[in-house]
Amino acid sequence: MIKVVILGGGNIAYHLTTNLLKNKTTNVVQVYNRSIEKIQYLDNKTSITDKLTELKNADIYIIAISDDAISSVSSKLNFKNKLVIHTSGSVALDELKSTSNKGVFYLVQSFSKKQKIDLSQVPICIEASTEKDLELLAVLAKSISKTYYTINSKQRKSLHVAAVFVNNFVNHLYYIGNEICEENKIPFKILQPLIQETANKIATLSPFEAQTGPAKRNDTKTIKKHLAMLPQKQQEIYTLLTKSIIKTHGKKL
Amino acid sequence: MIKVVILGGGNIAYHLTTNLLKNKTTNVVQVYNRSIEKIQYLDNKTSITDKLTELKNADIYIIAISDDAISSVSSKLNFKNKLVIHTSGSVALDELKSTSNKGVFYLVQSFSKKQKIDLSQVPICIEASTEKDLELLAVLAKSISKTYYTINSKQRKSLHVAAVFVNNFVNHLYYIGNEICEENKIPFKILQPLIQETANKIATLSPFEAQTGPAKRNDTKTIKKHLAMLPQKQQEIYTLLTKSIIKTHGKKL
Repeated sequence: MIKVVILGGGNIAYHLTTNLLKNKTTNVVQVYNRSIEKIQYLDNKTSITDKLTELKNADIYIIAISDDAISSVSSKLNFKNKLVIHTSGSVALDELKSTSNKGVFYLVQSFSKKQKIDLSQVPICIEASTEKDLELLAVLAKSISKTYYTINSKQRKSLHVAAVFVNNFVNHLYYIGNEICEENKIPFKILQPLIQETANKIATLSPFEAQTGPAKRNDTKTIKKHLAMLPQKQQEIYTLLTKSIIKTHGKKL
Repeated sequence: MIKVVILGGGNIAYHLTTNLLKNKTTNVVQVYNRSIEKIQYLDNKTSITDKLTELKNADIYIIAISDDAISSVSSKLNFKNKLVIHTSGSVALDELKSTSNKGVFYLVQSFSKKQKIDLSQVPICIEASTEKDLELLAVLAKSISKTYYTINSKQRKSLHVAAVFVNNFVNHLYYIGNEICEENKIPFKILQPLIQETANKIATLSPFEAQTGPAKRNDTKTIKKHLAMLPQKQQEIYTLLTKSIIKTHGKKL
């Protein structure tokens, strides 16, 4: 069994802890959080603490806290022959300031405590400073998920930016769609099957092949009609994305 | 049985014809297309024609052709006591130039011939100039899908613009995500579960509640890092959407 200590009480820490407590490959010996209240629910399942000086002995220390705090917390974890890892998409391996061995364990998903997530379906990106540690992280990753990838810090940062586009920005376009529906007293749920299908499509088609709509067809008549219907903020976004689609598909405005 | 003639050989016409041929409520008496080759595959299933002057007698004539051609084709369909409808999201009811009764039958989904679609899950928006015709369209809609809505031409046009945001523009953001992955030799499929989850989430949360990411948190440090990594075209889109999210969630840059 791999002995792990988990540091953090946020969304990722919550989902990881829940999974690793049930996982037959791991033994969660302790969970740390600076505010003990947030991890009180774990009291009867494992040891909990709010003191970094009282961390137990483990093989891997998983830092699942906010990006800004990773350097400072990791600088206090100086154990010989132990592996200290973080779970952030945008923080480089060498931002870990521990003198222990270092690694990254990035779960490519957006987590909220309310939403149940099947971690076996979540790809995990691993990175480590030694081959041996990479193998250990691969064992851990395989015990959680069906897919894992070895990528370096630069790739991971790019992946994180790509995730901002396909997750945060996509959700904002859903928000605008919702706004337009509300203004016109149309139930937003009419669009749910279309939203679902748009996401499903790219499992089999590339986004380039899957592109449809007035911008793709360079249908200036429809584009003008749409722009005339929109308030300025939405117009700007409509115009920029339309131009970008037209450019991508090789036609000029 | 409702006797229908379908006009068109494109994606929507294809999916509608396939469905209505099997549908127990309808009898597809004929399919018209200006080029007969495209509907030749229907030859042993129903009558086919490429002549508008040879259309058979039916209760409903469904015009499922490109938006630009709806006025001109409909102007040639002048039958007494018949219903002539189109299937477009962005064309108003009164753009039908037929002297027959008029209606609209808009399937809120993006269709391609390659992709199988379960029409029972596709919401249908109906509109008609008389109550009687609206009832007839409701019967037709219910025979195809689990959900239908009565909305007017203005609402439908707004819905179509909203669909551009949540379908066409969202797909373009997938395209940019794919581009970033390719440039960094990361398999795009790593993002598929995140994309799926982003779409699933808004079935239970509003897009406002579901928003996450550096823009939502007004995390200027991460935003700056991301911008520095992107080429200009992607930078512009990143900046505009980030500003819009910050504005939506009440914080200033």
